Amino acid sequence: MPTFHIILVEPKYQGNIGAVARVMKNFGFNNLVLVKPPELGGEARAMAMHAQDILESAKIVHDFHRLKEKFDFLIATSSVIASDKNPYRTPIFPEHLENSLRIDGDIGIVFGREDHGLLNDEIDLCDILLSIPTSKEYPALNLSHSVAIILYELSKQQKREEIKHLKKFQETDRITKEILLKNFDKLVDILFVDKREFSRRITKKTFRQLLGRAFISSREVSTLIGFFRRANERIRKE
Amino acid sequence: MPTFHIILVEPKYQGNIGAVARVMKNFGFNNLVLVKPPELGGEARAMAMHAQDILESAKIVHDFHRLKEKFDFLIATSSVIASDKNPYRTPIFPEHLENSLRIDGDIGIVFGREDHGLLNDEIDLCDILLSIPTSKEYPALNLSHSVAIILYELSKQQKREEIKHLKKFQETDRITKEILLKNFDKLVDILFVDKREFSRRITKKTFRQLLGRAFISSREVSTLIGFFRRANERIRKE
Repeated sequence: MPTFHIILVEPKYQGNIGAVARVMKNFGFNNLVLVKPPELGGEARAMAMHAQDILESAKIVHDFHRLKEKFDFLIATSSVIASDKNPYRTPIFPEHLENSLRIDGDIGIVFGREDHGLLNDEIDLCDILLSIPTSKEYPALNLSHSVAIILYELSKQQKREEIKHLKKFQETDRITKEILLKNFDKLVDILFVDKREFSRRITKKTFRQLLGRAFISSREVSTLIGFFRRANERIRKE
Repeated sequence: MPTFHIILVEPKYQGNIGAVARVMKNFGFNNLVLVKPPELGGEARAMAMHAQDILESAKIVHDFHRLKEKFDFLIATSSVIASDKNPYRTPIFPEHLENSLRIDGDIGIVFGREDHGLLNDEIDLCDILLSIPTSKEYPALNLSHSVAIILYELSKQQKREEIKHLKKFQETDRITKEILLKNFDKLVDILFVDKREFSRRITKKTFRQLLGRAFISSREVSTLIGFFRRANERIRKE
């Protein structure tokens, strides 16, 4: 797995730098590089909230071109779909960042100035161009919004394994869910005994699909098992 | 396809409201609702940049609870994974918003205060809870960052859906869903007549949340209404 670094090239507003530090911490990224930043004062600290450590440990450099050799891979970002600017530069979208997880080394994700973005020679220095698809009417995202969206996607992809685990934990085990479905089916068979097999099948299928889509938790399954067991007992007692 | 509205409940800082307006325009969303906002002045306008129209057309209301009837579906957002707070409230993640595109009507996505988020009774008023997975160390996202990430996901999914031209299902209307819930509740009251009020409430709530998360279709609702009606009739006949 690579180590990611967020590189801001000549950011103008210290508030934006603080906001970037905060969202980095929100998604578990720690390495911030600032190329010719303004002085960082109270406004940067206020926007960084509980991410003061990231602000304080930010590396400050003065020449973007000399950064190239320090990274194994550089990803340029652009809010304008690059093909409008340069037809030979086809961007990837955030969901494609997944592939970058295969790189073992230091990856820099490079964000340009609030007003003019990255210059062409800066983009050319990078290995690929990444663009967030936005409305044609107003494509220019706020700097920290771009960072937020890209780190959200990256962390989603990084944590894919972790999320799978979480889902497993949230989603009940198959056996308990089967008990719930059996209790439901039994009730359907009793209640729809006079109906065609088709009605019974549709009702059973509907409930199955509902459970599938809802990612039901173990606790919810237990609650519903209790409910359907009671219904079954009650009807059998008649 | 639904119409989405961004609802900010008691936002404190006008700069955040401006930043939200900007990112809405970046992703092609126009409807902003502000519940008890601060006065909007130069800071809001500065952050909104080229989204002044969204700021100016924002609807200002004073009671969040009275908004409920104006929307077909309300999505609460929370930066804290809700299961830590309340085990009966399982959140969906932004990538699951895809399912909401089946609803044909007005959907409100509700964001809470910068410091305290949404109150429990405000979350309870909504149909489902949406949470952005963040680092445990510092989960609280900046307000406009949350909006940016969610609108990014929604617009990605909207575009996909447009391409697919897939609109097989129509989300059922609120009234039919209420009939289903009433039938379910009636059965719970009969079956759990000997139990504490708490058990009845939990069972009812579990089923509600299940329906909310699964974005049930009209056909599915009709099928389940048929099922619960039969169960009620059968038990009453005893």
